[in-house]
Amino acid sequence: MKMPGSYYDDLTDSELAGEIDALETQVDQIKARGLSLNMARGKPCPEQLELSTPMLDVLGSGSSLFASDGTDCRNYGCLMGIPEARELFGQIMGVPADRVFVGGESSLTLMHDVISHGMVHGIAGCEPWLLQAQRAPLKWICLVPGYDRHFAITEYFGFELVSVALRDDGPDMDEVERLVADPTVKGMWCVPMYSNPSGIVYSDEAVARIAALRPAAPDFRVMWDNAYCEHHLYDDHPTLANVFDACEAAGNPDLVYEFCSTSKITLPGAGVSAMAASPANLADLKAQLTVQMIGHDKLNQLRHVRFLRDVDGVHEHMRRQAQVLRPRFELVDRRLTQGLADLRVATWSRPRGGYFVMFNGPEGSAKAIVSLAGECGVKLTGAGATWPHHDDPRDSDIRIAPSFPSLEELDEALDVFVTCVKLVCARLAAASRGTGADER
Amino acid sequence: MKMPGSYYDDLTDSELAGEIDALETQVDQIKARGLSLNMARGKPCPEQLELSTPMLDVLGSGSSLFASDGTDCRNYGCLMGIPEARELFGQIMGVPADRVFVGGESSLTLMHDVISHGMVHGIAGCEPWLLQAQRAPLKWICLVPGYDRHFAITEYFGFELVSVALRDDGPDMDEVERLVADPTVKGMWCVPMYSNPSGIVYSDEAVARIAALRPAAPDFRVMWDNAYCEHHLYDDHPTLANVFDACEAAGNPDLVYEFCSTSKITLPGAGVSAMAASPANLADLKAQLTVQMIGHDKLNQLRHVRFLRDVDGVHEHMRRQAQVLRPRFELVDRRLTQGLADLRVATWSRPRGGYFVMFNGPEGSAKAIVSLAGECGVKLTGAGATWPHHDDPRDSDIRIAPSFPSLEELDEALDVFVTCVKLVCARLAAASRGTGADER
Repeated sequence: MKMPGSYYDDLTDSELAGEIDALETQVDQIKARGLSLNMARGKPCPEQLELSTPMLDVLGSGSSLFASDGTDCRNYGCLMGIPEARELFGQIMGVPADRVFVGGESSLTLMHDVISHGMVHGIAGCEPWLLQAQRAPLKWICLVPGYDRHFAITEYFGFELVSVALRDDGPDMDEVERLVADPTVKGMWCVPMYSNPSGIVYSDEAVARIAALRPAAPDFRVMWDNAYCEHHLYDDHPTLANVFDACEAAGNPDLVYEFCSTSKITLPGAGVSAMAASPANLADLKAQLTVQMIGHDKLNQLRHVRFLRDVDGVHEHMRRQAQVLRPRFELVDRRLTQGLADLRVATWSRPRGGYFVMFNGPEGSAKAIVSLAGECGVKLTGAGATWPHHDDPRDSDIRIAPSFPSLEELDEALDVFVTCVKLVCARLAAASRGTGADER
Repeated sequence: MKMPGSYYDDLTDSELAGEIDALETQVDQIKARGLSLNMARGKPCPEQLELSTPMLDVLGSGSSLFASDGTDCRNYGCLMGIPEARELFGQIMGVPADRVFVGGESSLTLMHDVISHGMVHGIAGCEPWLLQAQRAPLKWICLVPGYDRHFAITEYFGFELVSVALRDDGPDMDEVERLVADPTVKGMWCVPMYSNPSGIVYSDEAVARIAALRPAAPDFRVMWDNAYCEHHLYDDHPTLANVFDACEAAGNPDLVYEFCSTSKITLPGAGVSAMAASPANLADLKAQLTVQMIGHDKLNQLRHVRFLRDVDGVHEHMRRQAQVLRPRFELVDRRLTQGLADLRVATWSRPRGGYFVMFNGPEGSAKAIVSLAGECGVKLTGAGATWPHHDDPRDSDIRIAPSFPSLEELDEALDVFVTCVKLVCARLAAASRGTGADER
């Protein structure tokens, strides 16, 4: 956002020009160093991966490779997942095991496939979305800032992406309630806990209002991507209301599909995903699953359950992950505070969990900052990525992903980032001053 | 097929009645034993799984978990698969590694997803099949006898399944060539090597004629499911022409998607699948893959490559598999010959590889045999499963899957099967005699 009375605004023209000169010199020096640092994606760092690498030792040729129901995990079968994996994910999502489908390594794929099911076969017997879309474009609610890969799925399937503000306690529910009165609005993406990228957690009231939605479209669905449900940075962490309980209470049992995965619990390249849904929704999806596959990798499911044991084991494991991540998030806040707080040019989030820090610069700054940082050898998520069609109307949001670099690299990357923010903001102040002069 | 002059036809009425009585007594004795045997699915047996179980020991926390290009296989990335896995599958399918996409545990899922792509987005820029289907039903060529899970996919997506005979050297190509002149015919399922279930191998001429098809529909595609390309029972085995070479030669580079997997090379619950396609087809599919996933399980890809090494390692491993399977297939032939050859009621295949024996009884016998065997505790693939919509017009085909039972169980199951075949054939002979008498 544009900060009235920023440090740069208070400078005289020649002070500001001097500041810009000095910052440009700094940037040139940084460029000369040939850095290659990355704060672009929510990717665990090697230290985090090491925490889960012993999982590779729990299943060997000498282990029992049978699931609790006697299934040989090396062979075909078990479409919905082995019982102990359904149980574990049920504990994580707070639903009975029989409402859980255990997938492959990617919950993103599960989400894609659910939407694909809606496109071709229709949700729960409704007309396929692709056919409905021949009469009038279909729409999908995208909370902003949000997750680019979510938006990409609904964009790929031809939905018109409707931006709705995500506030500190959840979606702008007045707006969501208004939109779902339109039968062409078919769904909404949600990351209810430590939302990607703003890190906010939906309040109980927000969850209750979502669960109580009365959409005009019978095939409206909420994609409840609970990717970060176990990803607390602090023991003293916020909690999220159980969306299925809320849906039951609201007489809306089929409104929500919930997704989660171990991608950022164990190994992102080789985790296990899961989906929870009402009995009616599961039966609907099972018609597709039955023809699409015989069953996902049960050895990896078994490996995960033997390694994590149960939800308490997950919590214990995630406390170790937090010990790796917490210093990174605290470093981001410290460096941004040290470098920028006095300049009054930007704000940023201080999340209690998840994988991202949301940075908000002045209007018209984000693309320039990301581009300049890139020239300096620091890769950031593309400006606008947190908005549908990569179109951030204020050009002010930048998603910072501090998990992957080492603390030393992160420190260096943040120094570069702060310098880039300063230069872009100083230039904006100069440009606005020029414009102001013209207008006078 | 109906065998003129079967043993039962040559009996007098009272001899035949006595034979039926004796067989019914045998069946009652079998039922009393409470057997539970299974010759229904092409499922590797525990001995086969043991051959691949040491694969679970090759990756541990002490192993290098990096791919040849430096990718950390524990983390995100590598959409198309790690280079060494693409290389291995390229060797298996006889294509360059850069034409290979490495998938999850199921090639069936890859096939489903390709068809789903055609439904919603259209093949290579053509109108989506779902929209085309609103004007006229779309059709899919199903070679019979064929694989029920193939037929199920195209049935699920609403295609009209058109049966075409699969002969000893491949499809009835005159009929296929006639059908593809119809632009509503969009594809064809093929299992070119050790076809499921008849076990035949496409001749070089058949491959060349398929590659040279000139379909009216630009979005006609051949689904080349090379599931059994490495699954020889004998060292002296037939070979299959390279379909991509044939397509290139015919100026038809984009006609075919090829699929394979390690499901029946290593572990069916936890194998790796792959797809080969022309550069244009891969680019078309990649648009979907990019939004559907970040990348499949690279640790399992690495585990497979470290275990199998290269295509020579695959051949060596498959020779060990053949040592387990060959006695089972030979037992099937021996028992069927001993029990049925003199009766002149049935024929069966003697495949040189793959997973199935195709059994052909008299017209109108298959459902009765499968049902009676079920009552006797021997589960067989449902009668008709090898035909679209499970509708075998002659009701004569039964797929025998001898891989899973132990040799002892298989021996017992085959005795039961032979007894059931005899009783059903004797009853058919009696019924036809009754009918014949009425007609006289």
